[in-house]
Amino acid sequence: MHGITQKIYLSLTPPTQEDFVSDQERILRELRRQGIQAELPLSILQSLYPFCPRSDWKFTVSLAYNGSVWSVVRMEAGDTTRQHYGICADLGSTTLVMQLIDCGTGQVLGEASAYNHQIPFGEDILTRIFYAKDQPEHLAEIRQATLDTFQEVLTSLTEQTGILASDCISMVVAGNTTMIHFLLGMDAFCVFSAPYAVHALDPGFLPAREFGFSLPGYVYCYPGKANYLGGDIISGAIATGIHDKEELSLFFDIGTNGELIIGNREFLLCGAGAAGPALEGGVVKTGMRAVEGAVERLQIQDGVFHLHTINNAAPVGICGSGIVDMLAQLFLNGWITIQGKFVPDKSPLIHMEDNEYCVTYAPGLCFYQSDIDEFLKTKAAAVTMIHYMLDLTGISPEEISHYYMAGAFGAHISKESAVTIGMYPDVDREKLVPVGNASLKGAKMLLLDCELLDRLPALLENMEYVQFGAVDNFINLMVAATAIPHTNLEQYPSVVEQMKRRHLL
Amino acid sequence: MHGITQKIYLSLTPPTQEDFVSDQERILRELRRQGIQAELPLSILQSLYPFCPRSDWKFTVSLAYNGSVWSVVRMEAGDTTRQHYGICADLGSTTLVMQLIDCGTGQVLGEASAYNHQIPFGEDILTRIFYAKDQPEHLAEIRQATLDTFQEVLTSLTEQTGILASDCISMVVAGNTTMIHFLLGMDAFCVFSAPYAVHALDPGFLPAREFGFSLPGYVYCYPGKANYLGGDIISGAIATGIHDKEELSLFFDIGTNGELIIGNREFLLCGAGAAGPALEGGVVKTGMRAVEGAVERLQIQDGVFHLHTINNAAPVGICGSGIVDMLAQLFLNGWITIQGKFVPDKSPLIHMEDNEYCVTYAPGLCFYQSDIDEFLKTKAAAVTMIHYMLDLTGISPEEISHYYMAGAFGAHISKESAVTIGMYPDVDREKLVPVGNASLKGAKMLLLDCELLDRLPALLENMEYVQFGAVDNFINLMVAATAIPHTNLEQYPSVVEQMKRRHLL
Repeated sequence: MHGITQKIYLSLTPPTQEDFVSDQERILRELRRQGIQAELPLSILQSLYPFCPRSDWKFTVSLAYNGSVWSVVRMEAGDTTRQHYGICADLGSTTLVMQLIDCGTGQVLGEASAYNHQIPFGEDILTRIFYAKDQPEHLAEIRQATLDTFQEVLTSLTEQTGILASDCISMVVAGNTTMIHFLLGMDAFCVFSAPYAVHALDPGFLPAREFGFSLPGYVYCYPGKANYLGGDIISGAIATGIHDKEELSLFFDIGTNGELIIGNREFLLCGAGAAGPALEGGVVKTGMRAVEGAVERLQIQDGVFHLHTINNAAPVGICGSGIVDMLAQLFLNGWITIQGKFVPDKSPLIHMEDNEYCVTYAPGLCFYQSDIDEFLKTKAAAVTMIHYMLDLTGISPEEISHYYMAGAFGAHISKESAVTIGMYPDVDREKLVPVGNASLKGAKMLLLDCELLDRLPALLENMEYVQFGAVDNFINLMVAATAIPHTNLEQYPSVVEQMKRRHLL
Repeated sequence: MHGITQKIYLSLTPPTQEDFVSDQERILRELRRQGIQAELPLSILQSLYPFCPRSDWKFTVSLAYNGSVWSVVRMEAGDTTRQHYGICADLGSTTLVMQLIDCGTGQVLGEASAYNHQIPFGEDILTRIFYAKDQPEHLAEIRQATLDTFQEVLTSLTEQTGILASDCISMVVAGNTTMIHFLLGMDAFCVFSAPYAVHALDPGFLPAREFGFSLPGYVYCYPGKANYLGGDIISGAIATGIHDKEELSLFFDIGTNGELIIGNREFLLCGAGAAGPALEGGVVKTGMRAVEGAVERLQIQDGVFHLHTINNAAPVGICGSGIVDMLAQLFLNGWITIQGKFVPDKSPLIHMEDNEYCVTYAPGLCFYQSDIDEFLKTKAAAVTMIHYMLDLTGISPEEISHYYMAGAFGAHISKESAVTIGMYPDVDREKLVPVGNASLKGAKMLLLDCELLDRLPALLENMEYVQFGAVDNFINLMVAATAIPHTNLEQYPSVVEQMKRRHLL
């Protein structure tokens, strides 16, 4: 098994009277002997002399696959096969995360991230899309901001590892469809506009120099399936291996959008829809990103909030995992109803402010009725996607062997709280598997395993795509899912159990 | 049959709710339907919007083959398939000749040429090679001079046809190994230095932009077989079709070097060696290129020279075809012996000058003994190549159905004179076929016939290469071939006939 790059040490016999094939052919012939069909681009042809004789014909070639053929993109004297590096990247709307990988061992040598430089053009994606829409100069700005983000993280990786970007051969990028459009410099309005035919879903291998990167090889963008089901999700699904297993799995990435894949090696049904920013703390009034001072865990005991903040700092707001705990705790203590409405007489912490009920969870920090309503709508959207897909396939929640929950959010959330509020299905907790940055993992896997490339087209082809917005009874289903945990309590036996214990039923 | 480029008009159905594949896939899908596996490079991905909707999804794609896959290198609104252009080029050490081809009809729309801008770095190739040897800046200068030559001819073609270089898709270049090395920016000392392992013989398809050309596609360099048997010869052989015929043919390109291919569809034996500049008038004291005032034909009648000059101008020197006539006429009139030595008492025009005999062929213009000696050595080298190859294969001169004589020289030379001096074999004159710029023809053929590409590797692989310098008894054979027509008169029955008629035997 090898990845989309290779380093091969060649110890060639110098030309003789008997064997006077060209330098080019001398190299290609040896590579063919090793089973590799390759080509030499102009820059390499120009560097053959005096490099070959000076290196005594003992050198290492860096090979980069370009989708059709292997290209020799670098030559180094001596045996440098052990310095074989590559980059994988998860390009999110908020954050770009990258790893510098030792492609020989698969080891992660460095990881770094940066906020996406697109953010000044709009916190949310739509603002950025409208900024660039039909304005080539603005689009160029956004592309440049994206490229700057990559450069920033590449620099961090070099500082961390001492390895230059130019010593890495190729890069695999997983990103949602909008992000890939911006990275390539394509107008992304199509992503959000019917009939949702985007400009490109499978840009493939593009020379890294066309991005201004100093890597000598290529940038490979993970192919997407549809506008809302981008390469990041395909990459994430690949990382969990659901397409390879006999057992049924469900892969779910919840963020501003929810993307979901259900299936196994026989079939894959996938869907995506807008969930809303609430899950990431975006709409909640005191919501914030998961940085220092954010409440990430909480409990209500004996009428008192017990908070845990990031870095144990004084609380300044609440992040996604804190919000899930908040709802679960408010509900289990009877401070909110099954409809998520405050019951003011349950606690003196519940009071009116700005014409709505809210609860003070820390000095000066309140969680509002509108926050709850917003969050529950988002939760409902996300959950309905799962329910809808299960319905569609006739699969019951128990038949799913594993629920892979992707995203930073999935990694930090309390499973119990998420089940309590009906955000996660009420199944054996071991079946709920947070997979962290699955998209980055899938990018790394492809960097290291070229054969995945051959499998991707069939995988994408066989995926059935459901666009939830287009589903008729989606709204009806959502209304039922707005309740805590759900209008249909039968699906949540362990929550019912707890409710009974706490005399809520 | 199609060439290495295609133009295809696509009339696509715009995206709908039912068919919302990406623009990229919409184009590739239709091309696949037409049997073409293609890819879209970044520049094209970036131009899809708003181009596709603005053109009402009716546009023409320009496809360029890159050796592995078809690349969409241009999109034009509407049906522009009839404007389908390409360039073929014969890059000689002295002259670059190019044609602008209508790739739809195969018609030559324009032809232009220019002196190679390398000439200021050295009239002969070796001087240029030494100038650039181990001096990257000098090599860069020579490369730039080569590229400037291309630009000059491209400009001429545009002036002639009104078609821009950027409207031509790809270019096929046939050139000798040194010229291709310089065009690509590779040190060419290897071409002339044992063990003659050059840097590259088959650079393949390289993006035209890497040459600074405005063509959106590729530059394809005809592959060579060996240092002295470059792409120009392979191209020339292809043009004559000797590799396709059942009959035995001989392809010969005589210039400063002699290159020769003998064979048929079953086998091809090829060889090359230095012939010397004399054949092109380079060493002859009053020798000159075939330009105005050059004696290109002559006869001696009743002891008097009858000259024909180019453009009927006053004679200022003698070019290749004139020299061949000169030797034949001097010989047939008994003014020189079978060894090529002047017989001074045969004409008052023969006299001593600068310590050697010479003959005055025009006012102030003499042809010297040393000119004759030099030319005969060169003739001997060329002829010996043919004899040697025939000996090697056991084929008699009569068994060869056609002798294809390439090069401007071959086109203008008098067959009778060439046979008389033993430069051409003494066979049925119809078998002696001047093919002109065969190298340019072969380049054009490949531009228009992509299938040739598939055949080239096997063709090159199956060629047996003989390097004449390396042949032991080559010098002995050459000595015999220095005589007029040859020491072995049996091979020249028609010359013997004439000699008898003129009482020279």
